[in-house]
Amino acid sequence: MNEGELSQVSGIKASGEKKLMLFSGRAHPDLAKEVADRLDVALTPTAAYDFANGETFVRFLESVRGSDAFVIQAHTAPINQWIMEQLIMVDALKRASAKRITVVAPFFGYARQDKKHRGREPISARLMADLFKTAGADRLITVDLHTAQIQGFFDGPVDHLFALELLAAHVESKIDTSQVTVVAPDAGRVRVAERWTDRLGCPLAIIHKRRDPEVANEVKVFEVVGEVEGRTCVIVDDMIDTGGTIVKAADALFEQGAARVVATATHGVLSGPAVDRLKNSRISEVILTNTLPLPEDKRFDKLTVLSIAPLVAQAIHEVFSDGSVTSLFGGHS
Amino acid sequence: MNEGELSQVSGIKASGEKKLMLFSGRAHPDLAKEVADRLDVALTPTAAYDFANGETFVRFLESVRGSDAFVIQAHTAPINQWIMEQLIMVDALKRASAKRITVVAPFFGYARQDKKHRGREPISARLMADLFKTAGADRLITVDLHTAQIQGFFDGPVDHLFALELLAAHVESKIDTSQVTVVAPDAGRVRVAERWTDRLGCPLAIIHKRRDPEVANEVKVFEVVGEVEGRTCVIVDDMIDTGGTIVKAADALFEQGAARVVATATHGVLSGPAVDRLKNSRISEVILTNTLPLPEDKRFDKLTVLSIAPLVAQAIHEVFSDGSVTSLFGGHS
Amino acid sequence: MNEGELSQVSGIKASGEKKLMLFSGRAHPDLAKEVADRLDVALTPTAAYDFANGETFVRFLESVRGSDAFVIQAHTAPINQWIMEQLIMVDALKRASAKRITVVAPFFGYARQDKKHRGREPISARLMADLFKTAGADRLITVDLHTAQIQGFFDGPVDHLFALELLAAHVESKIDTSQVTVVAPDAGRVRVAERWTDRLGCPLAIIHKRRDPEVANEVKVFEVVGEVEGRTCVIVDDMIDTGGTIVKAADALFEQGAARVVATATHGVLSGPAVDRLKNSRISEVILTNTLPLPEDKRFDKLTVLSIAPLVAQAIHEVFSDGSVTSLFGGHS
Amino acid sequence: MNEGELSQVSGIKASGEKKLMLFSGRAHPDLAKEVADRLDVALTPTAAYDFANGETFVRFLESVRGSDAFVIQAHTAPINQWIMEQLIMVDALKRASAKRITVVAPFFGYARQDKKHRGREPISARLMADLFKTAGADRLITVDLHTAQIQGFFDGPVDHLFALELLAAHVESKIDTSQVTVVAPDAGRVRVAERWTDRLGCPLAIIHKRRDPEVANEVKVFEVVGEVEGRTCVIVDDMIDTGGTIVKAADALFEQGAARVVATATHGVLSGPAVDRLKNSRISEVILTNTLPLPEDKRFDKLTVLSIAPLVAQAIHEVFSDGSVTSLFGGHS
Amino acid sequence: MNEGELSQVSGIKASGEKKLMLFSGRAHPDLAKEVADRLDVALTPTAAYDFANGETFVRFLESVRGSDAFVIQAHTAPINQWIMEQLIMVDALKRASAKRITVVAPFFGYARQDKKHRGREPISARLMADLFKTAGADRLITVDLHTAQIQGFFDGPVDHLFALELLAAHVESKIDTSQVTVVAPDAGRVRVAERWTDRLGCPLAIIHKRRDPEVANEVKVFEVVGEVEGRTCVIVDDMIDTGGTIVKAADALFEQGAARVVATATHGVLSGPAVDRLKNSRISEVILTNTLPLPEDKRFDKLTVLSIAPLVAQAIHEVFSDGSVTSLFGGHS
Amino acid sequence: MNEGELSQVSGIKASGEKKLMLFSGRAHPDLAKEVADRLDVALTPTAAYDFANGETFVRFLESVRGSDAFVIQAHTAPINQWIMEQLIMVDALKRASAKRITVVAPFFGYARQDKKHRGREPISARLMADLFKTAGADRLITVDLHTAQIQGFFDGPVDHLFALELLAAHVESKIDTSQVTVVAPDAGRVRVAERWTDRLGCPLAIIHKRRDPEVANEVKVFEVVGEVEGRTCVIVDDMIDTGGTIVKAADALFEQGAARVVATATHGVLSGPAVDRLKNSRISEVILTNTLPLPEDKRFDKLTVLSIAPLVAQAIHEVFSDGSVTSLFGGHS
Repeated sequence: MNEGELSQVSGIKASGEKKLMLFSGRAHPDLAKEVADRLDVALTPTAAYDFANGETFVRFLESVRGSDAFVIQAHTAPINQWIMEQLIMVDALKRASAKRITVVAPFFGYARQDKKHRGREPISARLMADLFKTAGADRLITVDLHTAQIQGFFDGPVDHLFALELLAAHVESKIDTSQVTVVAPDAGRVRVAERWTDRLGCPLAIIHKRRDPEVANEVKVFEVVGEVEGRTCVIVDDMIDTGGTIVKAADALFEQGAARVVATATHGVLSGPAVDRLKNSRISEVILTNTLPLPEDKRFDKLTVLSIAPLVAQAIHEVFSDGSVTSLFGGHS
Repeated sequence: MNEGELSQVSGIKASGEKKLMLFSGRAHPDLAKEVADRLDVALTPTAAYDFANGETFVRFLESVRGSDAFVIQAHTAPINQWIMEQLIMVDALKRASAKRITVVAPFFGYARQDKKHRGREPISARLMADLFKTAGADRLITVDLHTAQIQGFFDGPVDHLFALELLAAHVESKIDTSQVTVVAPDAGRVRVAERWTDRLGCPLAIIHKRRDPEVANEVKVFEVVGEVEGRTCVIVDDMIDTGGTIVKAADALFEQGAARVVATATHGVLSGPAVDRLKNSRISEVILTNTLPLPEDKRFDKLTVLSIAPLVAQAIHEVFSDGSVTSLFGGHS
Repeated sequence: MNEGELSQVSGIKASGEKKLMLFSGRAHPDLAKEVADRLDVALTPTAAYDFANGETFVRFLESVRGSDAFVIQAHTAPINQWIMEQLIMVDALKRASAKRITVVAPFFGYARQDKKHRGREPISARLMADLFKTAGADRLITVDLHTAQIQGFFDGPVDHLFALELLAAHVESKIDTSQVTVVAPDAGRVRVAERWTDRLGCPLAIIHKRRDPEVANEVKVFEVVGEVEGRTCVIVDDMIDTGGTIVKAADALFEQGAARVVATATHGVLSGPAVDRLKNSRISEVILTNTLPLPEDKRFDKLTVLSIAPLVAQAIHEVFSDGSVTSLFGGHS
Repeated sequence: MNEGELSQVSGIKASGEKKLMLFSGRAHPDLAKEVADRLDVALTPTAAYDFANGETFVRFLESVRGSDAFVIQAHTAPINQWIMEQLIMVDALKRASAKRITVVAPFFGYARQDKKHRGREPISARLMADLFKTAGADRLITVDLHTAQIQGFFDGPVDHLFALELLAAHVESKIDTSQVTVVAPDAGRVRVAERWTDRLGCPLAIIHKRRDPEVANEVKVFEVVGEVEGRTCVIVDDMIDTGGTIVKAADALFEQGAARVVATATHGVLSGPAVDRLKNSRISEVILTNTLPLPEDKRFDKLTVLSIAPLVAQAIHEVFSDGSVTSLFGGHS
Repeated sequence: MNEGELSQVSGIKASGEKKLMLFSGRAHPDLAKEVADRLDVALTPTAAYDFANGETFVRFLESVRGSDAFVIQAHTAPINQWIMEQLIMVDALKRASAKRITVVAPFFGYARQDKKHRGREPISARLMADLFKTAGADRLITVDLHTAQIQGFFDGPVDHLFALELLAAHVESKIDTSQVTVVAPDAGRVRVAERWTDRLGCPLAIIHKRRDPEVANEVKVFEVVGEVEGRTCVIVDDMIDTGGTIVKAADALFEQGAARVVATATHGVLSGPAVDRLKNSRISEVILTNTLPLPEDKRFDKLTVLSIAPLVAQAIHEVFSDGSVTSLFGGHS
Repeated sequence: MNEGELSQVSGIKASGEKKLMLFSGRAHPDLAKEVADRLDVALTPTAAYDFANGETFVRFLESVRGSDAFVIQAHTAPINQWIMEQLIMVDALKRASAKRITVVAPFFGYARQDKKHRGREPISARLMADLFKTAGADRLITVDLHTAQIQGFFDGPVDHLFALELLAAHVESKIDTSQVTVVAPDAGRVRVAERWTDRLGCPLAIIHKRRDPEVANEVKVFEVVGEVEGRTCVIVDDMIDTGGTIVKAADALFEQGAARVVATATHGVLSGPAVDRLKNSRISEVILTNTLPLPEDKRFDKLTVLSIAPLVAQAIHEVFSDGSVTSLFGGHS
């Protein structure tokens, strides 16, 4: 070999460019549309349907090559269906040469299965994080994870957004906070409740679920720890699913002399008997965001729904433009 | 450091032992039960249910530590639900220290999405293979993949079983094979049809789907290529889904003078209008296996269902005891 | 190629055998010795030392080929030193052909950094889990993780042991539980405190750290939520590090009229001022286990140390012999 | 720690830029040169040679740092040599900090070993895909894969190009298509043949390889299925290797009364006796592309070679400039 | 599905931009500062401290999203502490969405454990490379690796810098090279010594460590191979750790009649007795670079320290701007 | 869910068993046969051949399920061919459910490309290690690696065998070692030469390749460093490839007055002019092992070939039976 370092250089140069593209699964098109409008971008036209045997098919109708792709899906019922659709969308984006793929899951499914409660259980929240990684997701945007540790389940950047400010501002505008006691509906929510007490400057109470020694099995007694007599109790939770816990918590609070009970949560799962339970309960107001779809049959008079779209849109914008998501929350993550 | 090689050796020894355990998802308990009976093993007791919002939960009620675990699930509708359940079972087994985990999917879901037909599509069959790997599956047992290449999608051993002998023996017992022409219902099935012609010693015809030049879009004309006049046509397919293709194929065969048409396939998906279409068609007999559940409302007079359980049980036995699965099929794989 | 399936089979057979070997880092040899004695196995002789510039070197003095290796290390100060030593031991085992490698970390280091508290922080607990995996660890045994979600950080089986029964039995034997109130020293411990209330049948109180609105920055006020007047308060924590929180919690409890305060925790980190703080506090008794070394200078009159060795030894035995670890804790995990 | 969020930001900014660089292995320099000319880019000067014992060495003579690198190699005989060279080139690019590496393999080697035909065989096509991934390839460009499923073997984007339009346009320009019957030379080619019938508007026939029941072993009889009498038969295949199949197919067609036989394929492997067989056959014209080198000794009168370079160059251009490759084929992939 | 290829394209475009950010661990802030000054960039403000039990914490005080991050750390004692800090910094950068992360380790720790010297040892240098990869490092910059093969331990680009020119120019400026013999202090350094002989045009000698047959165990005799009588011997090494080898080498050289001995090395580890040994030896001058911190108590009269900062800064600049690092060393790597 | 821990346990138990199977590629069947005979095991019957275009095909003719598989291949010319064959064999074993796969490569190909000598080179030795891992190799057995660091390139156990004892015993039996000087033929071999001086108790000399300052380019002068006058020089190398270095080294030794020159190396590559050069040189004896095939045309009078088979067989036996390979070499690795 008789070589020398050559001085001229081969190759064609072009200026780099980046392009945000927004994709939506079929679970919650309204939220995706609202986010798109906020960002002033059209949702990329997508063909998505199910075959007769339930297999999901997705195809994008425009070139996505080189794009910075954000894929929004709500993990609502039928949840396995919608998670699988999002996985398949990510796979299609990867194979179609998207440059970077961000899964936007405002409510992260299976978050409650974030540990083994007993032996031989799955840790499905970690599994979901791994499935998204395997499909090709580079990063994740989500709102109010059931536990913050789930950030650590994903092997990559997670932008964890908080609805606290959105919800708290609404509470503040409607309720005299000097009368408020913040209530954690169970042991796992005490940390979040402390954030509320700091935000509103209010005292704290918690609902302690104690095993009833006089009854067999796992029956639990709801016990209020802390002072609630004459207070406006604001129960703060990350999600309301069947509503059972929150309604029992309200009952226990009234039993201890609470003057009024308001419930707030980021995620309105509202499964099964939830709507009836809440409607028929003594809870005065229920405040949720629209991270999950809340169709007409899940709406009721006492319910207030605040839109999470501005927050999600802002986060996507920061991620795309290499800004700071942390700065949206005063440094908290 | 002043060390010397010591002569005595520390440690406790014990003889190795291996233990087959069989697990079933909720999609097709009858098949799992039949396989278990064949193996003379009890299905491991398992708690599996869905939360109100559709999240699936699984827990095994016995220790699975160190086991050689086989997890049977039928990928039937709602298919995303059942695939996710199987993934979660595999995760739970991995975390509970099963020694080796084999996914048994007699019908492998999403197998038809084994390539991009057009741009920006997923390759969902590869995605499913990767999801099972990620969850913790070491190996795969399946029957009559839509295309044999799917074996290559899984990064590990795949035992690919064939129902050909089971189905062909039945055909042979019922039909005079000297009158039979084997028919491939579309281009993708010709290879399989050739295996049938070799097995039965019969001639071949194929249904050629030709784009109709006189009609716009993707309308296809079913054209018979090969001689079928006066023959008993046995249409061989890997699956019957909505039945559309197979019924149109039968019509085309009768138009070309076929005396009789029988249809056989390994997988009875039988989605949507399938049962009505088959019942109302001129097809004399439909022969399927039970890789997928065929409940009463999918059964009809002309339908014969052969059990795949003996074959699956034998394969599991060979895998567990380090025997040869290949030998079950005369060397074919 | 003119081949036929041959009937004779080549190869040499031998019966499988498994062999438990136990290894100890240098951080806490007493615990390792005690575990070894319980298991009736000798610790594998190991040369371990540091080079002049601090680089750690390890060499095993016996063949470890094919062994089921358990590597015990306490993540005590200097913690980075001991974690790195354990990583290096795992690497050496992997390269020396150990068959399976289990990291035994009774106290899992960096567990408190299990999430991002603010932006641009690491999630060091996940990082540690990944580092062990990369080095070659197949599985993990640990005691009372700071949060149970950390199980999900490791991509493999984690046997999570609980010291609750050990500690609670001691408390029960010394204190009239009808006088006891279980106290969670902060929001993150409420779940664990609930396990204690169920175990002892006692009421619950919690220490609520509230931001002081009259003082700038992050100064926190310790507020007791729940009734403690005249009660024997048992503060339950996973670890006592500098002792600051627990001593302030005790002060707050006495201010609210507590009759007596006892503190218990699984992990005695006892850093910096901890011993002096505890000695000089009004806490009557401090109950810890020896998951971390507690040398003479960390011992004091009010301190009781219970040995975790029997529990760890039993878990290792179950893992080695494919028994059930879950059964040690009545199904909990 | 006394920190505050700082307002000023550190760091140096520069505008992004991307740079296409083209590399060629030694297997087929003419094609690489033609592609380079089409793209108006110089091939990057590269030192490549073999050591005395056959080890391959590669070194690039210019900086490749940050480049969008495309590495062209023809997988021609000695195929293992050229695949290994391409793997080594990819490794060198990865270690020299190329930003993105695309393997351009117009003919993808080992594509025929895309499944296990019998037990205990490799799936070499998947292996090759994995080897390229391991070496550092981010993506793949290839032409007319033996089966489309091979796209799914690579864990990343595959741009799959089709020579159909190139070949069909030539056929159309030379032959009266109203006389043409498209012939699939075996079961595996029927799908491709259907694309031709749609493109040319012609009928279909297939060659059915039937096991001869009167002769032992695997001897196959070539049987024509479909009408070919008096027709101009265009046999369409993905590759012509030894020419055995295609010449026997032609013989069978003439036996059934075909007026004329033309053969076309994308890949001219032309191994061993291929050239003689084709020359001496009754096939009128053989049409190939130059995905593989066709040196003078493989050329003969009846052979037409069309250049694939424009198509490959266009695909590289689309990939580099984030355009759409799909659009080159009317949406097909 | 009724879809058509749409002509308009959704998405928002923005011009790409890249941003260099420089981070420093706490091990050697002076070097980091000097590199930053050379690059005319501020070190990104970082909070880094240890908790009471030794756990390391890091947080960046500015947004690092999208940055091209370079993380400088000296692997000096306590080396496990500083390596762990660098790993944690990389993890934090990954989770905070840095675009590319380069570990800058001017002295790569554990480089001497680059192979198993005896059975059952770790290969810690490979382990370190893997740990950095796992934490999230994309690439590595280092100076004068103990053996060049360590480049191959990292699965990604390694920019390997040489201090030879820096050191040799100094030697040349101070010593009459016609009198110089370059001396390799042991077998592993002969290759590097040859680079010096080529650079300075001088003869070579080596120190041969021979086992003393008259003494048991591993005692070694230092034997000079080559002519050194009356010569100025320049001992060239990659590092000086405890100084034992180099001082014994000098003694052996003087015994063989050397006129003068100068020692030079890239890395001044200077552990334990090193400074005293060197001060008290007959070595005239010791020349080092500042890849490792050399605080006042490690400085002495005969010691010359040259700054490696310009070289490191230049390499970072080339990497950031897609220039050529190779060109800094005339093509050598 | 109303579940209880069940007491009975499902599952079938069987005693574990392990089975050694030995496989050989086509490169060096004699060595494989000799190893098999030593182990008293038959080589597993294997069909291996090349297709017309050079693609390699392999199929095993017996079930390999559950086996402890050892795959022997010599990396001799055409080396890419044989490495690819071994990769394909490993893939086939993986997919056929071998339990553990050990690559036995007595000469590890591409070992000399173990680092980048200049910029933009590959590190092919690492690449080969990764390719074997990707194909499915669990472990590696090899003899006298070019540099010991290559052990660290493989992510798994490497059993590194030494031919030193075999070769040295032969030298000792033929030559009066009191007259011997061990000679390292270049800088990279000095470490190995030191092992020989310790083994034989002889002095050392080295060949120093110095750039000739009077001639342009990279021409090197061979300079003897150390005393060789009147001595029997034993040049020790890991391999003899083209013989150029060793013959020039011998010439330089004779120029300095050597009485006699003997050359020994583990690997007899003997490429191109090697045999002629050695035959025609003044070297008295050349001693090699048969790690690579040495057919008749590579044999000559002065050549002695010692068999490596006993060593390889012993290592395989130790690996299979969980014995100690380290003990074969007195602890060295």
